[in-house]
Amino acid sequence: MRAALELFDERGYDATTAAAIAARAGVTEMTFFRHFPSKDAVLVDDPYDPLIAEAVVRQPATLSPMAAVIAGVREAWQAVPAPAAVEVRDRLRVVSRTPSLRGALARNSASSADAIAAALQSRGVPTSDARIAAAAMMGALNAALLEWADGDDSELGSAIHDALRVIEGGRA
Amino acid sequence: MRAALELFDERGYDATTAAAIAARAGVTEMTFFRHFPSKDAVLVDDPYDPLIAEAVVRQPATLSPMAAVIAGVREAWQAVPAPAAVEVRDRLRVVSRTPSLRGALARNSASSADAIAAALQSRGVPTSDARIAAAAMMGALNAALLEWADGDDSELGSAIHDALRVIEGGRA
Repeated sequence: MRAALELFDERGYDATTAAAIAARAGVTEMTFFRHFPSKDAVLVDDPYDPLIAEAVVRQPATLSPMAAVIAGVREAWQAVPAPAAVEVRDRLRVVSRTPSLRGALARNSASSADAIAAALQSRGVPTSDARIAAAAMMGALNAALLEWADGDDSELGSAIHDALRVIEGGRA
Repeated sequence: MRAALELFDERGYDATTAAAIAARAGVTEMTFFRHFPSKDAVLVDDPYDPLIAEAVVRQPATLSPMAAVIAGVREAWQAVPAPAAVEVRDRLRVVSRTPSLRGALARNSASSADAIAAALQSRGVPTSDARIAAAAMMGALNAALLEWADGDDSELGSAIHDALRVIEGGRA
């Protein structure tokens, strides 16, 4: 991961090959592909989906679907160790500046939405409402994170809290 | 538009050329491209963005950004004539069943989000909050509309109201 981020920074994402990343990391290309199914997986695969899904499932049954997703994301974020935030920013910066990664980002976002929707369905939320709440959250989070990745002035945590605060304002 | 939807239904989207659409409609290809910059524009260009943006701008200043977007979408939807809903469904069905259109859908969705975010900024909402609220709404609307387009049992209006109701539940 670190070798890849260094090379993306030095040469740009599109000009960096999986072979170059493996060489910089001192491993074979086969080892690279054992950890990452593709070059874009270095940037867009997200280890936090299961944490968020579990946290959504744990929320009190009285919460609405949207409120359970908001509370779940808030709780999962608190469990992410601080050094990981620096790496998330480096990854997101490359993504936000590389138009060729938009498709991979959209696929990853759809799979995060599926994980959240499945968590809601296990709480008894109808499929359609579950998908709507999950898609609203992913829209808000992606907007907040891309905005944050391009700036210098705030912490990852405040970007996530911005997303949650804005959606919470939905009720007039 | 009608000729295009007929042909997409008969032959599939990918197998239908702009020339075939023009021929079915009894116009030249040049006339087709005067109305639609590309074949995918028949399906994903959305005439409702300006209506929604204007309705967002008109909402009371006391509403939060998310509440203003919800109220704006609700108001704009009430201004769409009923026959248009049938056409929207035919268009969305083709989109939801044609993987090659996902990129065009994402671009259109981003441009709708830009229009909504600009409307919020004109109300004095900071850029980041405006983009978050707009992206949350587009996520919710796209999920509700794709869900609706694949079913037979409910009206377009109820899909839109589902999206608004779920986001409104954001506050516990």
